[in-house]
Amino acid sequence: MERIEHRAAAGGWQSVYRHQSATLGCAMNFAIYLPPQAENGPVPVLYWLSGLTCSEQNFITKAGAQRYAAEHGVAIVCPDTSPRGDEVADDPGYDLGKGAGFYLNATQTPWASHYRMYDYVVSELPALVEQHFPVTAARAISGHSMGGHGALMIALREPDRYRSASAFSPIVAPSQVPWGEKAFGAYLGIDRQSWSAWDTVALLSRPQTHTPVPLLVDQGLADEFLEKQLRPELLQAACDAAGHPLQLNLHAGYDHSYYFIASFIGEHMAWHAQALRN
Amino acid sequence: MERIEHRAAAGGWQSVYRHQSATLGCAMNFAIYLPPQAENGPVPVLYWLSGLTCSEQNFITKAGAQRYAAEHGVAIVCPDTSPRGDEVADDPGYDLGKGAGFYLNATQTPWASHYRMYDYVVSELPALVEQHFPVTAARAISGHSMGGHGALMIALREPDRYRSASAFSPIVAPSQVPWGEKAFGAYLGIDRQSWSAWDTVALLSRPQTHTPVPLLVDQGLADEFLEKQLRPELLQAACDAAGHPLQLNLHAGYDHSYYFIASFIGEHMAWHAQALRN
Repeated sequence: MERIEHRAAAGGWQSVYRHQSATLGCAMNFAIYLPPQAENGPVPVLYWLSGLTCSEQNFITKAGAQRYAAEHGVAIVCPDTSPRGDEVADDPGYDLGKGAGFYLNATQTPWASHYRMYDYVVSELPALVEQHFPVTAARAISGHSMGGHGALMIALREPDRYRSASAFSPIVAPSQVPWGEKAFGAYLGIDRQSWSAWDTVALLSRPQTHTPVPLLVDQGLADEFLEKQLRPELLQAACDAAGHPLQLNLHAGYDHSYYFIASFIGEHMAWHAQALRN
Repeated sequence: MERIEHRAAAGGWQSVYRHQSATLGCAMNFAIYLPPQAENGPVPVLYWLSGLTCSEQNFITKAGAQRYAAEHGVAIVCPDTSPRGDEVADDPGYDLGKGAGFYLNATQTPWASHYRMYDYVVSELPALVEQHFPVTAARAISGHSMGGHGALMIALREPDRYRSASAFSPIVAPSQVPWGEKAFGAYLGIDRQSWSAWDTVALLSRPQTHTPVPLLVDQGLADEFLEKQLRPELLQAACDAAGHPLQLNLHAGYDHSYYFIASFIGEHMAWHAQALRN
């Protein structure tokens, strides 16, 4: 594991590491912010999953989350959004292939050999982080757009691994919207039944056996993708039907950009910090 | 004047406008953040001057200042760092020509015809902003690196126009460091006497007739340009000699990046807000 960036930020350190991922079969970057409290003992971790076209860089340079992480004593880990490298399959579209891993394990050619972002985010990366950094096993997860889909879907599948899950502008029902139909069709094949295991709204219709992970979602009402790709009303209905705890905040005027994330990331950090303290 | 971006941010609006500058003889972009308080009446303005290679975008996407501007009810205006366009003279170096206007009025060929960033920032842009937006004539000024030079130098030359001036990692003595020697030599010519009117440390040695504008400067001690280009000790000595009010904060570990700015922009916004309220 090689450290490729290391910068003081908000009293702690914002770093980027590069490592060889056994799960993905390629070299991967991830970012980690360690708050000042990590110098005195292990701190809990928020995992942040980014959206289409992003890398580990977008959130750490644009969200302004470090000050809140330092205030609450929470580390933040940001993986990349797909496997990377010349040997990894890709697609000309921005919404499939590199930069668009959709946080699932692909089963179809040519994707299955590298596109296993679910296993990477859920298992390999936390194990690596918890081995090498002063962090506890208390985890929360959040993300934006495609990464919001990832955060909610992962928390529903792994309720014993995360204390809380939140999202900005998430794709809550990928099986029902164009971004998800394209990606799931390519990664998982034409059998739509196989899609439901990776779809937040579909997962909510399954019987739940664990204590449910509480969900916090913020959505801008001027989001250019709201009606066609995001459809938060489907999440609200599914949570209502399942009795799953959801706080859905709708914001007039806000769009899909990092200005929206930066405007409310402090509230998300405080909410996760509360769950991580318990 | 054309609005080319408009996004909700921290309860207010982050916009970018494009207009034809008579001073610079070209089309220019500037960013303006209006806090929510601007809906109820005019608010004071902080002008932010960016550093080498930057445009009006860097500060608005990376500094996380909007939340503090909203907290204090202050607008933020960010000009570009030089004239732009095919007809504007340029240099292959990143530290001369486009993206490197140094906030002065050039006197030398081929620069003098467009490079008049001082007049643009001090006169044309505030007049435009105060005509078209709900702002008062209470102004503060801040900046980073080359923009820190601009903010301090402008405040010393125009004490009746600014309530307060601050800087992150400023070039305090451009006449004495490589970045400034290259730029001033090109824009102002080889007569070094002409340089002193655009040099913060040199300006501080002149007799002051106005009430001095208070200065706040933050500097990282792991800044890769600290000893060769920035030299904050020259500013401290010049302020001490002149009796000019300066708060200079040195920070172990911090470098020249926006992570440093984002870490302390809240303190700068609060400090300016205090001066702008008086």
